[in-house]
Amino acid sequence: MTDFAATKAMFHLPDGVIYLDGNSLGPLPRAATARMARVVGEEWGEMLITGWNAAGWMEQPRRIGDHIGRLIGAEPGQVVVGDTLSIKVYQALASAIEMRPDRKVILSDSGNFPSDLYMAEGLIRTLGRGHELRVVPPGEVAGHIGPDIAVMMLTQVDYRTGRMHDMAALTAKAHAAGVVTVWDLAHSAGAVPVDLAGCSADFAVGCTYKFLNGGPGAPGFIYVAPRHSDQVRPALSGWLGHEAPFAFDRDYRPGAGIERMRVGTPAVLASAALEAALDIWDGVDMQALRARSIALSDRFIAGVEAACPTLRLVSPRDPQARGSQVSFRFEHGYAAMRALIDRGVIGDFRAPDIMRFGITPLYLGEAEIDAAVAILADVMGGALWDRPDYKRRQKVT
Amino acid sequence: MTDFAATKAMFHLPDGVIYLDGNSLGPLPRAATARMARVVGEEWGEMLITGWNAAGWMEQPRRIGDHIGRLIGAEPGQVVVGDTLSIKVYQALASAIEMRPDRKVILSDSGNFPSDLYMAEGLIRTLGRGHELRVVPPGEVAGHIGPDIAVMMLTQVDYRTGRMHDMAALTAKAHAAGVVTVWDLAHSAGAVPVDLAGCSADFAVGCTYKFLNGGPGAPGFIYVAPRHSDQVRPALSGWLGHEAPFAFDRDYRPGAGIERMRVGTPAVLASAALEAALDIWDGVDMQALRARSIALSDRFIAGVEAACPTLRLVSPRDPQARGSQVSFRFEHGYAAMRALIDRGVIGDFRAPDIMRFGITPLYLGEAEIDAAVAILADVMGGALWDRPDYKRRQKVT
Repeated sequence: MTDFAATKAMFHLPDGVIYLDGNSLGPLPRAATARMARVVGEEWGEMLITGWNAAGWMEQPRRIGDHIGRLIGAEPGQVVVGDTLSIKVYQALASAIEMRPDRKVILSDSGNFPSDLYMAEGLIRTLGRGHELRVVPPGEVAGHIGPDIAVMMLTQVDYRTGRMHDMAALTAKAHAAGVVTVWDLAHSAGAVPVDLAGCSADFAVGCTYKFLNGGPGAPGFIYVAPRHSDQVRPALSGWLGHEAPFAFDRDYRPGAGIERMRVGTPAVLASAALEAALDIWDGVDMQALRARSIALSDRFIAGVEAACPTLRLVSPRDPQARGSQVSFRFEHGYAAMRALIDRGVIGDFRAPDIMRFGITPLYLGEAEIDAAVAILADVMGGALWDRPDYKRRQKVT
Repeated sequence: MTDFAATKAMFHLPDGVIYLDGNSLGPLPRAATARMARVVGEEWGEMLITGWNAAGWMEQPRRIGDHIGRLIGAEPGQVVVGDTLSIKVYQALASAIEMRPDRKVILSDSGNFPSDLYMAEGLIRTLGRGHELRVVPPGEVAGHIGPDIAVMMLTQVDYRTGRMHDMAALTAKAHAAGVVTVWDLAHSAGAVPVDLAGCSADFAVGCTYKFLNGGPGAPGFIYVAPRHSDQVRPALSGWLGHEAPFAFDRDYRPGAGIERMRVGTPAVLASAALEAALDIWDGVDMQALRARSIALSDRFIAGVEAACPTLRLVSPRDPQARGSQVSFRFEHGYAAMRALIDRGVIGDFRAPDIMRFGITPLYLGEAEIDAAVAILADVMGGALWDRPDYKRRQKVT
């Protein structure tokens, strides 16, 4: 039985704020403050260079990877953290393509996060061997799987709409056609139950600053199925992925298994906050989290649709087809979101017209959902988007 | 006039420690503690997602890059931080190779840091177009520059010996032969005066956790000469290098100038410590730092050679050919270094037999140098390397 009141108490949430943007940047775990002070003051400050061994910095990427693995259906030794999600996409995709030298198509969908598509473009240019990035609508991915496809690269949960792919079904269909799979779990890890082993996924990547609450710019992660991890040869062959980094050999020899997906010196300070954030999950049952996510999401949808008829739901109504966010289309969504944020309800906006709300049961309950609906209804009634201070500005959200 | 007593006071140095490993991991700047607490508590904790604008997180990589630029002879807008040094090597090298499509050789030397060579290997494999990594002894680089060379990729200061390349002369010779240059400043930035603009360097990369004191795993940086930066097309084309990241366009369009060398979401927490560390340099004159580095290094060499005749200097005796470290060869160097560290003098060891000492005037003076020499002499006299507890262990240093 997961105690969500207890998990909520583990976060610092500012007074007067209802935070519905944990799908973009999770809030501060209270334990991260002390953990960060310790890594700075006691580890870096006192241990200096000896911290690499004495404080376990060198093993941190594996240790944290194992912790994330428990949330996504991976065994110990199959996940490692480091770099950013974009870099991890490049690594996974480069290794996946190399497994199908006779095929030239990378299949993805228009709901993928743009950076994944951009990294694929860059890799294709670097490869210079005529690969094609084929981007189809999300609903048409299954129909495009076939013997011409080398790699299917998908983000499981759409960053704008929350639409969720059936990972098991698509992976099975891909494998039947000899297609290697790369799953981006940016909006899945910590949001929905993921079973990489059960799906026989080949590669998976993700970030840790959204539902895993690792802090702004926290490292990415990568999973490689154990049946591949001793075979793949990394494109980004950095010294910490070497079999013996401190032998300083002239030639690269990949490390054992997932170790070869490490690249450069790990981000020790950033990882300390992430490690504190992951401890929160030790008492959390992912099925219980999922049930509560669905209940809160359905409650939010019902409340908004009743109170704000001009907002149009773009997330799937079927909870099984939806991740842990709810999005609505509204012509003046940018201004409306700004007005909402000014009232203390923080969601975010994605061009051209999507108002996006993350549903994060670790620190949100019915009271926050109902209050957010009431304030949103009030904002919508005020039609503030014609006021000059809410007009679109050229800024990130 | 640089006040080195003042800069020393800006660092936390543990009691009883003489720290001669700032070339590996710089010590904790006192200001980093408060800065880190602020970014965690006041920025992440209170601003949540709005920190990207309100706290300037999004501009941080450029702002910090400009600060580093001042130490390496670059103008504002020519340096950006992010990722790790290994990733930045890959970016620079991929862009440099593309500028010489008709040439196939990457020239480097055996004194380069292995990760640079490994990353080049990985890139060559990914390119799959028959490039060759030609690794020659450091003294023979100039003789190998010619019209067959696409890119000369060198680390200016040798991580083991401290031997320093003449960047201006080698760059000029490279350019005369149409060769594009990539300089790794890992042991140069904050260690010796660097004048990238004066040398007409094409690309430069570096790390920030050594002489720049940014903390364990602090981000890397990359410089692209302004004559190239609007032309190069990044291999690692991540969303934050896009012209308009938050337009979420389907296709990648590189951002203006150095912005295109950004990849994924920046490491905000890690960068906060780095930014605090860089503030220390505002009162430092690089020529004064260099003069003091040479004086302290010469003093250390003279002291060690007088007191420890079995240690053999492997760093250049000519200070103009040396960076800001001093290294000695000794058969039992590993055990001797362990014994030295147990006595509070922290240097490090690089296989097979190099004892390495960083000379960092920001926080080291004559008193520390003389004390380190005395303790080293005592350790050497004790011949502790035959004791079982000092035998080589299979551990990183």
